[in-house]
Amino acid sequence: MEERLSIGVDLGGTTIKMAIVDYKGTIVEKWNIPTDTSNNGRNISNDIANSIEDKLKTLNIDTSLIEGIGMGAPGFINMENGFIYKAVNLGWENYPLKDDLEAKTGLRVHVDNDANIAALGEMWMGAGNQASNMICITLGTGIGGGIILDGKILHGVNGMAGEIGHITSIVDGGAPCNCGKTGCLETIASATGIARIATEGLDQHPESKLHAFLSEKGRITSEEVFMTAAENDEWAQQVIGIITQHLGLAIANLSAALNPSKIVIGGGVSKADQDLLKPLKEAFAKYALPRVYEGADFAIASLGNDAGVIGGAGLVFNGNLKS
Amino acid sequence: MEERLSIGVDLGGTTIKMAIVDYKGTIVEKWNIPTDTSNNGRNISNDIANSIEDKLKTLNIDTSLIEGIGMGAPGFINMENGFIYKAVNLGWENYPLKDDLEAKTGLRVHVDNDANIAALGEMWMGAGNQASNMICITLGTGIGGGIILDGKILHGVNGMAGEIGHITSIVDGGAPCNCGKTGCLETIASATGIARIATEGLDQHPESKLHAFLSEKGRITSEEVFMTAAENDEWAQQVIGIITQHLGLAIANLSAALNPSKIVIGGGVSKADQDLLKPLKEAFAKYALPRVYEGADFAIASLGNDAGVIGGAGLVFNGNLKS
Repeated sequence: MEERLSIGVDLGGTTIKMAIVDYKGTIVEKWNIPTDTSNNGRNISNDIANSIEDKLKTLNIDTSLIEGIGMGAPGFINMENGFIYKAVNLGWENYPLKDDLEAKTGLRVHVDNDANIAALGEMWMGAGNQASNMICITLGTGIGGGIILDGKILHGVNGMAGEIGHITSIVDGGAPCNCGKTGCLETIASATGIARIATEGLDQHPESKLHAFLSEKGRITSEEVFMTAAENDEWAQQVIGIITQHLGLAIANLSAALNPSKIVIGGGVSKADQDLLKPLKEAFAKYALPRVYEGADFAIASLGNDAGVIGGAGLVFNGNLKS
Repeated sequence: MEERLSIGVDLGGTTIKMAIVDYKGTIVEKWNIPTDTSNNGRNISNDIANSIEDKLKTLNIDTSLIEGIGMGAPGFINMENGFIYKAVNLGWENYPLKDDLEAKTGLRVHVDNDANIAALGEMWMGAGNQASNMICITLGTGIGGGIILDGKILHGVNGMAGEIGHITSIVDGGAPCNCGKTGCLETIASATGIARIATEGLDQHPESKLHAFLSEKGRITSEEVFMTAAENDEWAQQVIGIITQHLGLAIANLSAALNPSKIVIGGGVSKADQDLLKPLKEAFAKYALPRVYEGADFAIASLGNDAGVIGGAGLVFNGNLKS
């Protein structure tokens, strides 16, 4: 165990993941507590502060060894002052998270959004392999994005950088997105989007094995689409073709601007591994400039659920991450 | 005149623009020499070195006052060591420009690509108004792009960052681009692209006033498209609608990732000013997330032909630009 330690906190709508992480990115201890969203989430920072205090006591780690807390939160955040404008799932609105948690723990607190800290975690200790220019895309229920340039999270002018899920990929007639627009990448290449596309086209494909899942459980998951495609189901393969074309095009277009060295794909959909990466890289190759293509490696995120707590801890050491 | 000076050089295929610029971004003196592309461009660096020496002598400025030369060049460049892989217009291939010019002038030389130094110039002294996060798009014969993040030019892993002209905007059936792909933004929203689209659709619009230009001179220019649109020509207006939709979508998608504070449009096409900006901003608003839209100001590049020499000089002071 290195002497320099920090605490990563990954705040989700149902669980708060926490870890004590050393300067080299090694997890010393990790644990979870449930997210108490009652009373507009007013107990959350108390719960975090108490849980950290207990854990440090149990492990006999002096608080003075902890350089700070790095925390990922959902919603609209001002990264400069750790102020949460709105986090619907938690009931927070205009909540000074950083100040509150600093007061309760006596530790310096850094706040960023959850997709960004996951990207930082993957860059530091995961599939990003310390690439200084990296795009991280999390394909889950929605699509999260984090962009690392020169080793730092890109925030943009008002904290919205990295909102890759809201790239418009279908200009006319796209599905409605939660953001209010239509045709966003999130409506296509998220787990939800994949399931929707597979389901909507199923009528035209009476031979598809995906019918069995739909009649059995009333729904199709993106996992089942990849599984069925691997069994040579034509419609399932077409769906993967559609979604990787959109995703590959969006990544190629981003890469024309950013020229990244690494593109990391995470989230539930990334469990499909090469069944996703192979057609995705083919689509990318089709739309990327040759030198941009040569410069960019693809990888599946490797830290799984730990990306957030490691990236959170990394925020504390940011600008100075070593492994 | 400030004591700290640098020299900006903007190397084009027919003219080499040069300027002595002070630390505050003021041009002390500017002049041009023709680009001698004979003998595979082997006289160019000599011509630049001699011209600078003569100019400093004439102005009675001691070389010791010059902190360095910042130079924009066309082609594929390694910005780290100022090595030109290939610059077709100049006849250069595998040419160590930086080393050569440093040997000939005794001054420190910084090399970057021409679109990037123009962006840096606009950020420093022009329409960028010192925005630290800025996208600069030059709509000329082609489309050049420069991205400034945290006040510095973004280069990417192998110097290709900012190649906004090669964002694929028409996935199927787009026009062939010089880069080898099809449907690039450059084939649509450059001066060349606008003229091509206007000309190709003219048969279906016998009423358009653009026919007069075509029969008179055998071609239509993008300037004439904007001029004719201002006279309420329906087809010319449709063309502007098409190209601003593509450009606005591309900028909105980039902005979902970068969340810039400023978007500067330069090049010949930008002379259309509000006739371009108004429909462009409308298209941007349609495809951008509300907070991203709120964060981003559009402006027409204001330095004209001086952007390159000012940005080149800015390279020398980079990381420390004041006005």
